[in-house]
Amino acid sequence: MTYRRRIQVEFNHCDPAGIVFYPRYFEMLNSVIENFFADVLAYPFTRIHVEEKCAVPTVQIDAGFQAVSRLGEMLEFTLEVQHVGRSSARLAQRATAGGQVKLQCTSTLVWVTPDGRAAPWPEAIRQKMIAFMEANDGA
Amino acid sequence: MTYRRRIQVEFNHCDPAGIVFYPRYFEMLNSVIENFFADVLAYPFTRIHVEEKCAVPTVQIDAGFQAVSRLGEMLEFTLEVQHVGRSSARLAQRATAGGQVKLQCTSTLVWVTPDGRAAPWPEAIRQKMIAFMEANDGA
Amino acid sequence: MTYRRRIQVEFNHCDPAGIVFYPRYFEMLNSVIENFFADVLAYPFTRIHVEEKCAVPTVQIDAGFQAVSRLGEMLEFTLEVQHVGRSSARLAQRATAGGQVKLQCTSTLVWVTPDGRAAPWPEAIRQKMIAFMEANDGA
Amino acid sequence: MTYRRRIQVEFNHCDPAGIVFYPRYFEMLNSVIENFFADVLAYPFTRIHVEEKCAVPTVQIDAGFQAVSRLGEMLEFTLEVQHVGRSSARLAQRATAGGQVKLQCTSTLVWVTPDGRAAPWPEAIRQKMIAFMEANDGA
Repeated sequence: MTYRRRIQVEFNHCDPAGIVFYPRYFEMLNSVIENFFADVLAYPFTRIHVEEKCAVPTVQIDAGFQAVSRLGEMLEFTLEVQHVGRSSARLAQRATAGGQVKLQCTSTLVWVTPDGRAAPWPEAIRQKMIAFMEANDGA
Repeated sequence: MTYRRRIQVEFNHCDPAGIVFYPRYFEMLNSVIENFFADVLAYPFTRIHVEEKCAVPTVQIDAGFQAVSRLGEMLEFTLEVQHVGRSSARLAQRATAGGQVKLQCTSTLVWVTPDGRAAPWPEAIRQKMIAFMEANDGA
Repeated sequence: MTYRRRIQVEFNHCDPAGIVFYPRYFEMLNSVIENFFADVLAYPFTRIHVEEKCAVPTVQIDAGFQAVSRLGEMLEFTLEVQHVGRSSARLAQRATAGGQVKLQCTSTLVWVTPDGRAAPWPEAIRQKMIAFMEANDGA
Repeated sequence: MTYRRRIQVEFNHCDPAGIVFYPRYFEMLNSVIENFFADVLAYPFTRIHVEEKCAVPTVQIDAGFQAVSRLGEMLEFTLEVQHVGRSSARLAQRATAGGQVKLQCTSTLVWVTPDGRAAPWPEAIRQKMIAFMEANDGA
């Protein structure tokens, strides 16, 4: 299945060339993941970070920027789960506007316990991620 | 009248204390102003900055932070126009969550032409700002 | 006395108008305060936030932006202690480049214990802040 | 050869877990590249972006985060030129602290003219980049 979320390009995202400064894209990509955890996995970041003192750091990220994004454009982000491991997961994200692909990104996240070590995903997360990955959304 | 906009506190806004890092509040306050220009004044930042090469820099800002904001909280921002001058305007903003005031901010913006000098507001902006300031929203 | 620190205006600070986006100034001002705590008060933020789980939130900030700062400019920040209270302190900061004042800022910080409440400054901080405030640097 | 630059982990870089939020790493990596252009290529971003209205957007970036970075750590960044093409270049960056590798990153930059199209590197940049790539720094 595909999770979707829109983010408008605002002034604070743009550089002197009037286009999105790419570190801001990573803030957007992280925001989409954060909302995916809340909306789809029903496991919001407050629960992970504040209540459980765990974390889901990104350990690998590969991104390609195909076209620039300009102030005022509405970016349509998609997120798909590509792989769910014991303590890690690989997510694929894409942003488009007006049918044009702006960027594609693959990131690997790891579940980390309060002692800072990778550990198996909580079962509630793992099952929902696998179900989401395997469901067909007719797209 | 009062312009309203909601921004959820996300991971990228928060500091090691788990609360909003105050420079991020200023990004939020600027985003609310940016959307106010598009939604209320019908004069989006793309028109100002990209088409007309003008700008609306903030020349003065006074903010008080009454309570901390935590990851996951939904901030309700309000914006009111306090004063419209020849080339400047004073806006009052506030953010609350769950009825608790988080911050109050007054900022003065100036209309600047491509040569970098303050100049009278475009008439379309000036009239809409005054109308918004004077309208009673029954609040 | 006056604490001094230089920060060069880099690409990530600048907006589509090619000038510093003002929320980035607040990141710079906070960085100067952070280094002041380490260099002058000998009480680094790691000690405050990580070891002691305390915090020094900004509760009030008033800033005026007199001139724009452009990509590549070297900003000279100064910091002076204006007032030291029981649990709060008021700092005055200024940034100049080439003798031109870019911004002036006054901020009030509060010492907060792990329960989130204001509390008296640790004596080591309080004494050093007062000594710094009262010393004459011949300027 | 290897270009080196240090960046201290400050409060504004850190997330609620007290470690560097990875989009801030990309701001640091971009800052190192910006300083490399000024210091090594003698072609600062002001010349590229302000005077010539050109740009050097990142079109591909692959990063691995091997260890977390904590508030107060001094990150030692290195930058090497891996490949210089007609209008693109591939740079390899790494950050370490206390001998521990924190991240490794490869990015591809492209020279873009004011019309937004990729174009051959200015000869001054191209020659200096190749010379830097081929020089042996005895490391």
